[in-house]
Amino acid sequence: MIVTELIEKKRDGGEMTEEELRFLVNGLVGGEVRDYQMSAFMMAVCCRGMTERETAALTLAMMHSGDTVDLSDLPGVKVDKLSTGGVGDTTTLVVAPLVAACGGTVAKMSGRGLAHTGGTLDKLESVPGVSIEQPLERFKQIVRQTGVAVIGQSGNLVPADKLMYALRDVTGTVKSLPLIASSIMSKKLAAGADAIVLDVKTGNGAFAETVEEARALARCMVDIGSRMGRRVVGIITDMNRPLGMAIGNGLEMKEAVEVLRGKVPSSDPLYKVCMVLASRMLMLSGIAKTEREACLMLSSALESGAGYSKLREMLSAMGGDTRFIDEPELLVRTRTLMPLYPDKRGYIGHIDAKQIGIAACLLGAGRLKKEDPVDPAVGILMKKRYGDQVDENDPIAYLYVNDEQRLDEAKELIHKAVEITDEPPAELPLVWDIIE
Amino acid sequence: MIVTELIEKKRDGGEMTEEELRFLVNGLVGGEVRDYQMSAFMMAVCCRGMTERETAALTLAMMHSGDTVDLSDLPGVKVDKLSTGGVGDTTTLVVAPLVAACGGTVAKMSGRGLAHTGGTLDKLESVPGVSIEQPLERFKQIVRQTGVAVIGQSGNLVPADKLMYALRDVTGTVKSLPLIASSIMSKKLAAGADAIVLDVKTGNGAFAETVEEARALARCMVDIGSRMGRRVVGIITDMNRPLGMAIGNGLEMKEAVEVLRGKVPSSDPLYKVCMVLASRMLMLSGIAKTEREACLMLSSALESGAGYSKLREMLSAMGGDTRFIDEPELLVRTRTLMPLYPDKRGYIGHIDAKQIGIAACLLGAGRLKKEDPVDPAVGILMKKRYGDQVDENDPIAYLYVNDEQRLDEAKELIHKAVEITDEPPAELPLVWDIIE
Repeated sequence: MIVTELIEKKRDGGEMTEEELRFLVNGLVGGEVRDYQMSAFMMAVCCRGMTERETAALTLAMMHSGDTVDLSDLPGVKVDKLSTGGVGDTTTLVVAPLVAACGGTVAKMSGRGLAHTGGTLDKLESVPGVSIEQPLERFKQIVRQTGVAVIGQSGNLVPADKLMYALRDVTGTVKSLPLIASSIMSKKLAAGADAIVLDVKTGNGAFAETVEEARALARCMVDIGSRMGRRVVGIITDMNRPLGMAIGNGLEMKEAVEVLRGKVPSSDPLYKVCMVLASRMLMLSGIAKTEREACLMLSSALESGAGYSKLREMLSAMGGDTRFIDEPELLVRTRTLMPLYPDKRGYIGHIDAKQIGIAACLLGAGRLKKEDPVDPAVGILMKKRYGDQVDENDPIAYLYVNDEQRLDEAKELIHKAVEITDEPPAELPLVWDIIE
Repeated sequence: MIVTELIEKKRDGGEMTEEELRFLVNGLVGGEVRDYQMSAFMMAVCCRGMTERETAALTLAMMHSGDTVDLSDLPGVKVDKLSTGGVGDTTTLVVAPLVAACGGTVAKMSGRGLAHTGGTLDKLESVPGVSIEQPLERFKQIVRQTGVAVIGQSGNLVPADKLMYALRDVTGTVKSLPLIASSIMSKKLAAGADAIVLDVKTGNGAFAETVEEARALARCMVDIGSRMGRRVVGIITDMNRPLGMAIGNGLEMKEAVEVLRGKVPSSDPLYKVCMVLASRMLMLSGIAKTEREACLMLSSALESGAGYSKLREMLSAMGGDTRFIDEPELLVRTRTLMPLYPDKRGYIGHIDAKQIGIAACLLGAGRLKKEDPVDPAVGILMKKRYGDQVDENDPIAYLYVNDEQRLDEAKELIHKAVEITDEPPAELPLVWDIIE
């Protein structure tokens, strides 16, 4: 095959075959296809799109560009979940142990936070002692013992994605449905799960700003999964506000512990989304037949403390000091705790979740650049939600601060992000759609 | 300016500003814009196109990426011509001296042949002694003395085009009207002419296979020129057959000499196209007001031998041994002269000019690869034209051969390229359109 002819085929709107895509992807990893050729190809994909069959073939080619994780020696259906990235999105820390407590098998590889979105690995590391790097055999051993482990990517998984993403980042080819979907799915599939629940965020704090974009992305990823014989479902959830009240690694771990300990009411948005995701995970695992059945199992795992025990077991197996989750206030001890008051009374009529995420980064809770250090204790704890009534004497948030260097900037950002209106805003759905 | 944002702008179909294009083009030459970024940008141009204003701005940016030739100290309107490349296209060797003989100023930089198309520099070098590399001052001196000089590109002209073309060649981004037009025009404009006649070939031996493509390319280039204050006209001429009878460097020089010496009838296609091009050059130069007036001047320059004298003077000034053009049989002495007979009697109903050009390359007349050596004496002399009656005893062509290594291949190619039909074919126009 001749590289330029393959690029021209896509340039002219043709449909690539599996062999052709494998040739390009393996060629990139092997060095025979040059970076300028791959970037021209990816731009052609941005402009011309890809069919479902092509996107699945690209995903397959990327998935097999390096090692894949074989979880077949673990018992049961291995179920994974994935979030496209949000603010105050602490679901994994709740859902993974909760599903394990109901008999599910969750062997999960997670990522770090970047830009305004948080990452589960950073949250896990807020607990002193936790090591997110675990050899594959130890990872499986933890899953065998506790039913759940969440670690960092191990081994040479999907090297094509690393190369392609680094190129896309500098060539204006990030925004492409088939490229985004294949990037996400190739990594998930290489990590070995049989079933995957996709939490596709939509709104001002999400990659997919509109529900339509989120639906298209979910549809595309569900299709890829089903073409590869995996059970996949996509849940479109709202990110027009932070999901939980906590934004910051220790704060989010603390909030997850509170949910698992049953200290959060069932009206809470984080609680609700966790229930939807976890119940779908149980259904895909074949453990529950209906959503109702799943929810009953999950509620009882919360009430009995079984979910919390699983989190504790997992963190302990990963080297974590469990005193910090038994007494989670220890996770968030900062030099300063600073209340933030609204400028006027009224209602929270709009929250720009992305700006809240960036404000947390300015406090040191996340990375605006890859190499930024992260302070596990700092962040933002919202005291008011979207739609809540506020007045000047009542803080809308507390800032957990160690380094005041960019504090003013962060405060200003939050003030701008939280709009106070005279009338209460229209209610926003929490779950926009379920794609299966 | 941020490179990725500029690429994204074009990806999303936006119109680039002059500053943005200059930033990209100069960045490529300076190394700040990386090759993978430029190839993504050029693929976006392939997919999204460019407006006339953008194409002109791109041309301007490319033109100023290196040295430009200043011909302002030469007298009169400096007029240039350009062919998009054809087979048996010997027009420059006729037209340049002929226009000079009528008082025009032709200071021209030409190129070499590549693939199936011939190049004027190779044809000039068929005359022993001729040096196509001339210092700029010497080049101008020749023009001052004789009114005409045709040399190779001198100096660091349009370095952006070299980089961009090398990338396009390996990234499937060759086929793009604005990229082709800006590549051609940036070089022509940097070479300093005030007026340019574009000979845009169309047909099976041309880059633009259909008349519509050729028209679009001509329109695009004429527009670029006029936006830069140059007088430009585009002539769409037929390349569904070799233009002249000769394909090969010495053979074509010999044919040009024959035209200039008045030995070729005015019904001859090469003669006709030369008259159209040269008359337009005289009109753009302000030397003739009408085509009729120009044609009269040109005919008299042919009859008087003034055109031929100009060619002779120019070649002599460039170091050429003029005995070889006074007696042009000397240019084409080969070991073997081989007649080629048709398989059956009938009419020449179709000629694939590109295949004829490739056959000539196989004999050593041109370069299929950049590094191929060229033999000035060898080539193909057609004895029959499109539409001519033929029979088995009458050669359709003579092959001038020194190296028989690929002779059989060449012969087979010509046999395939020349289709004999029972009925005479429909007449083909020679000039399809004039775009001004």
